[in-house]
Amino acid sequence: MSTRRWVMAERPHGKLETHHLDLVDAPREAIGDGEIEIETIFVSIDPTTRLWMSDVSQHAQPIQLGDPIRSFVWGRVSASRNKRHREGDMVFALGAWESFTRTRHATAIPKSHALPLSAHASVLGLTGLTAYFGMLDVGRPQAGETVVVSAAGGAVGSVAAQIGRILGCRTVGIVGSEAKAAKIVREYRLDAAVSRQGDLSAALAAACPSGIDVDFENVAGPVLDAVMEHINPGARLVLCGMISAYESDGVWPANVVRPLLMKRARLEGVLISAYFNRLQEGVEALAGWVKSGEMRWDVDVLNGIERAPEALQRVLSGANIGKQLVQLAPDPWA
Amino acid sequence: MSTRRWVMAERPHGKLETHHLDLVDAPREAIGDGEIEIETIFVSIDPTTRLWMSDVSQHAQPIQLGDPIRSFVWGRVSASRNKRHREGDMVFALGAWESFTRTRHATAIPKSHALPLSAHASVLGLTGLTAYFGMLDVGRPQAGETVVVSAAGGAVGSVAAQIGRILGCRTVGIVGSEAKAAKIVREYRLDAAVSRQGDLSAALAAACPSGIDVDFENVAGPVLDAVMEHINPGARLVLCGMISAYESDGVWPANVVRPLLMKRARLEGVLISAYFNRLQEGVEALAGWVKSGEMRWDVDVLNGIERAPEALQRVLSGANIGKQLVQLAPDPWA
Repeated sequence: MSTRRWVMAERPHGKLETHHLDLVDAPREAIGDGEIEIETIFVSIDPTTRLWMSDVSQHAQPIQLGDPIRSFVWGRVSASRNKRHREGDMVFALGAWESFTRTRHATAIPKSHALPLSAHASVLGLTGLTAYFGMLDVGRPQAGETVVVSAAGGAVGSVAAQIGRILGCRTVGIVGSEAKAAKIVREYRLDAAVSRQGDLSAALAAACPSGIDVDFENVAGPVLDAVMEHINPGARLVLCGMISAYESDGVWPANVVRPLLMKRARLEGVLISAYFNRLQEGVEALAGWVKSGEMRWDVDVLNGIERAPEALQRVLSGANIGKQLVQLAPDPWA
Repeated sequence: MSTRRWVMAERPHGKLETHHLDLVDAPREAIGDGEIEIETIFVSIDPTTRLWMSDVSQHAQPIQLGDPIRSFVWGRVSASRNKRHREGDMVFALGAWESFTRTRHATAIPKSHALPLSAHASVLGLTGLTAYFGMLDVGRPQAGETVVVSAAGGAVGSVAAQIGRILGCRTVGIVGSEAKAAKIVREYRLDAAVSRQGDLSAALAAACPSGIDVDFENVAGPVLDAVMEHINPGARLVLCGMISAYESDGVWPANVVRPLLMKRARLEGVLISAYFNRLQEGVEALAGWVKSGEMRWDVDVLNGIERAPEALQRVLSGANIGKQLVQLAPDPWA
């Protein structure tokens, strides 16, 4: 039995197209001492993967031609020569868009909180945790403040926006269409949502009559520029992603310096890697909100590894609602 | 006796030229209830004054045509109908480039620390205090880290750089020429200084072999872009000024978003107005360093109100060393 994986055939320099990627079957190699093999159940589909395909300065090594497309995966240990993991255990790991992943570094997922594995791959996973630590540790919204979240229908944004609401803030989402705006207001119980199509600055002015105290930024580019026009003195802008720029290799100038100075505001990048020693704190808080019904979580699932490129295109265009996953096998805890 | 003042004759949209300003003599009006009149001894010459001349979004109202050129002043109370101030007292206030200023809001300067009034107008004044709170409260450098300060020969930068050295950091200044670099290394006892002429990024790479942990940014524009190429994970960038942009009305894009995200770094504006209730804490700390000899302070003085435009041009071109003042009368405590 082989592993089926996506590799980079050609480096994309703009829109990701199917000819940039090849789906190949490769033999499964025997695992070495300390390694495990994971049979993939869910592949995480994240904007970051598109960034890793670009040969630009970033927080990780770019994917090289011929390499598997890097992503997080959740699955079952199918073979182990590592004493921390037993066959059959559920784990997540940095792997690739492939049906079997070999690694030395996986994290066990205990069956807890009576939630399906897809919850561990979304609201309790790295995307939900990024929202948690970005809001609590960097944005620090106070009750009564106004919080804006871009890509508020996405995996991170939907959790960040609901945290804003749970903390007692006026919470406004930014999404790609009016229809999606209506949907997230209803489903995530936000105060308002606006479309980034049209005059975003005017829409934000109307939706945020007291200005913006915290911005949870997933899109950057023109969205961030529009937010900047409405920030209050002392605003905190949590820079979590820049989806608008991931399909461009160029420099990404932004008109942020003047408003940051004039409003003594703060723009701060957040990477979940800085919180790897505190993940459990976030998991417990998020699970509590899920179980009490305060936090809704959504997964947007495509079935079959062959659909991974399509899934990434969905995420980059903002078509998904909630965490985008590609599913290769049944959820064992569903 | 009249007051002699500079007013805005024409709004500058680029380099400040003498035809933008008019020197006029105006009658001194009688002060109203609650007001004082201040006979100016020192006029503060700051890059911010050039920003106030522009009709762009900022933290204060732009100066209007015909208005006096706004600035802080230090001087002697020459008349008072305010019970908090007596004739002869030393005060500072937001006034203008003029020989007599009327105001309701002045701050008394007690004769303390056996220092001349020019020290109160520089290292112990708002510029020194901006450096103090920007470094201590926003930058928070830890001993052993690398601190970079732009405009390190200026009023704020020279104090910020010396605080970096006092706190045990490797401290590197950025200035406008090689000659000035050599001078500030010697006089402020910095580890290194580089000129922003030439390849600033390469010069910073050589001067900061362990990368940059804290940047105290007074210049922005290409200087900030070069700094951004060398920041370490978790870097703090204290955005105090953007001298490079004050003579331009346009938007000031910067390539900061990507590095802030990839390095989970923080860019935060600092305005001294946020610290008006804590100024005394800064004055005491700075005075202590001055008296122990750890903190050198410099003033760069031109004599006569007629030289104020020339003094501002000096500051905007980075020709000054230390705090630029225009002096109208003898320093009573010198």
